[in-house]
Amino acid sequence: MNSKNLSHCEKKVVIIGGGFGGLSAAKKLANTAFEVTLIDKTNFHLFQPLLYQVATAALSPGDIAAPIRWILRKAKNISVIMGEVISIDLETKAVELHDDKLNFDYLIIAIGSRHSYFGKNEWEKFAPGLKTITDAISIREKILLSFEKAERVAEQENVDKYMTFVIVGGGPTGVEMAGAIAEIAKQTMLRDFRRIDPSKAKIILVEGENRILPLFDPHLSKKARKSLEGLGVQVILNERVTNVNQEGVQIGDKFIETQNVIWAAGNAISPLLKSLNTELDRAGRVIVEKDCSIKNRPDVFVIGDSALFIENGKPLPGVAPVAIQQGKYIAKIIKKDAQNKERKPFKYFDKGDLATIGRARAVMQIGGIKLSGFVAWLAWVFVHILYLISFRNRYKVLSEWMWYYVRNRHGIRLITHKTDL
Amino acid sequence: MNSKNLSHCEKKVVIIGGGFGGLSAAKKLANTAFEVTLIDKTNFHLFQPLLYQVATAALSPGDIAAPIRWILRKAKNISVIMGEVISIDLETKAVELHDDKLNFDYLIIAIGSRHSYFGKNEWEKFAPGLKTITDAISIREKILLSFEKAERVAEQENVDKYMTFVIVGGGPTGVEMAGAIAEIAKQTMLRDFRRIDPSKAKIILVEGENRILPLFDPHLSKKARKSLEGLGVQVILNERVTNVNQEGVQIGDKFIETQNVIWAAGNAISPLLKSLNTELDRAGRVIVEKDCSIKNRPDVFVIGDSALFIENGKPLPGVAPVAIQQGKYIAKIIKKDAQNKERKPFKYFDKGDLATIGRARAVMQIGGIKLSGFVAWLAWVFVHILYLISFRNRYKVLSEWMWYYVRNRHGIRLITHKTDL
Repeated sequence: MNSKNLSHCEKKVVIIGGGFGGLSAAKKLANTAFEVTLIDKTNFHLFQPLLYQVATAALSPGDIAAPIRWILRKAKNISVIMGEVISIDLETKAVELHDDKLNFDYLIIAIGSRHSYFGKNEWEKFAPGLKTITDAISIREKILLSFEKAERVAEQENVDKYMTFVIVGGGPTGVEMAGAIAEIAKQTMLRDFRRIDPSKAKIILVEGENRILPLFDPHLSKKARKSLEGLGVQVILNERVTNVNQEGVQIGDKFIETQNVIWAAGNAISPLLKSLNTELDRAGRVIVEKDCSIKNRPDVFVIGDSALFIENGKPLPGVAPVAIQQGKYIAKIIKKDAQNKERKPFKYFDKGDLATIGRARAVMQIGGIKLSGFVAWLAWVFVHILYLISFRNRYKVLSEWMWYYVRNRHGIRLITHKTDL
Repeated sequence: MNSKNLSHCEKKVVIIGGGFGGLSAAKKLANTAFEVTLIDKTNFHLFQPLLYQVATAALSPGDIAAPIRWILRKAKNISVIMGEVISIDLETKAVELHDDKLNFDYLIIAIGSRHSYFGKNEWEKFAPGLKTITDAISIREKILLSFEKAERVAEQENVDKYMTFVIVGGGPTGVEMAGAIAEIAKQTMLRDFRRIDPSKAKIILVEGENRILPLFDPHLSKKARKSLEGLGVQVILNERVTNVNQEGVQIGDKFIETQNVIWAAGNAISPLLKSLNTELDRAGRVIVEKDCSIKNRPDVFVIGDSALFIENGKPLPGVAPVAIQQGKYIAKIIKKDAQNKERKPFKYFDKGDLATIGRARAVMQIGGIKLSGFVAWLAWVFVHILYLISFRNRYKVLSEWMWYYVRNRHGIRLITHKTDL
């Protein structure tokens, strides 16, 4: 009995990634006998569903991020390391950082994903994706700089290409970005310029399927599209982007001249996962077992956007609730392992989907309930405030949104980096 | 009469710089018959007295900045250009941008200053100054990354150099930085680490004179020093920095090993001012006439930190109220010029000085009144909220400070850029 307890005490859990999945696993392992280390490239947990609001000048980075070590400050058995894992050695059970090496008994990989350019990585520099705070700030500055450039050269050249915005991908991120850019141009900055008229900006959303928000009910897709069109967004369906360059973007047989392409389509996975030597799907996700572990390695788990988990013949979507539930599940089975209990398979509990299209407009489906408009928007505000990581963030974001609701203005319109435009 | 009005209508005023000086001139010229253009390198007006709070993770950049074109949106006679002036041609009365050229009848130069390294510009990369949002974010990340690095390597090497902070310059910026860093280390992050003890951080403030805050009454300098020492800051007086390099900083005959030197001393001026071919002082400031114009050019003004204005035998200090009052004064004399009225010399009305040393501690002098402690801190909060540019910023900063006062915590502890440390 004594020796069993001792070996239990010494078990080391390493978690890579402080997003929704990694953090929820860590929280469930807080103040247990496990020695837990969480490693992340940044020092903060990011509330990614609101990242588009940083990109569209509605929130500050500090509003949707909280230091990971602060979140876990009361968990004395958890160390937080800011650093990058450069390799995983499954044989010796160790992960290597630039200036550190850590052994593990259990490894949880929760490193999320980047956007995929379908093999055309050269498009990225013309069409940035939106996954990190740095991405969000870059996109914010790209949008704002475009209007500045247009104002500066309006008397010398045609400014259409500066005032055309193409968003690729009609999922929640793309829809939310398109709605927010329309609001900035057509409402927030309406009176700010002398030579150009920001309300003449063209905002185009491109989706390869036959409707936007394909995860939602077709009825809500239609509502969302109407809302976007009401804001002046042009929605292009059933078309794929075939080229992106310095001059613009090719959509089917039409070339749109623009300096502003924003990428919100596809997912690509970190090379770290390849080093696991296990089966990946076409998008580069690790195909995991029913307990989220990788084949033949019950001590190594992959969760969230990095994993392909098949339930009832369909892959689980890349959304926060999946990652959170998987993180909790794994913490539970690690604890049960110590008691040699059998692992029950992971089951996803779908709480519904929400997407917003601007001030006081949203769509939602929860179980059989499908809503759109103001009520859905209130639900969206409520859910997002509820899930924000700390009370401080909740207080800040809510006060920012109250201001935004009353004044209808995106406030954080700063360009802080030098660029060439 | 008619022709005189006409010529008045066509007068062009170009303002370089959207800081306190340039913006106050622009506001006074709003909705007059002058055709005004304000040029700034950034798209926002920055409330510089609170910049140290961004550097020390208390405020977000968006809290202390507002888009210039939004501030001036109701002034239909004012165009705002985001761009960099690369040369001034006094003969043809024109300023040149990279992709634009503007003629002027009046030119107002209000471009502020950078820190001076007393000819040792190679120190800058080891000891960044604090003048822009980018500076503030860099310093914030430098401070936070130091603690992260220390935590990561605490088991392999001595971490003193990562946990020593040297602030050079005992003016308001240096004093405020030192107090805020002490608060972060010794209070905010107290429980966040496992291997290091942040309360053991050394914070050292170096001043070449025999007291800190030399612009204040000696009695208040002493109070401020006591407050800083109460927060655990070591104050070194009568010593100058003679070298800064990768390993640390040489102060008199003592070398302090540190990765964190922050520069808050001296002022250096833009090369643009040299191109004016007028007399500069040793610090590179333009020596201006009694009406803030440059010698023999009543149509060209230099104000704020870029100018040396002698009043009663002493130069005016480089503080916001001087720039604001000079901006308003110049707008007034430009308007009077149209009526051929005589120019009365500029007179500075000194409203007093304030500096804060952390939560609920400050020093102030207004006329004969000298105060320190909580009342001075409340006055400091009040004055800074009052002078913030927009109601939105006021609301955000006040709500952030309320949170900070109640919870005693610097909230924006994010590291968003990749660096080597």
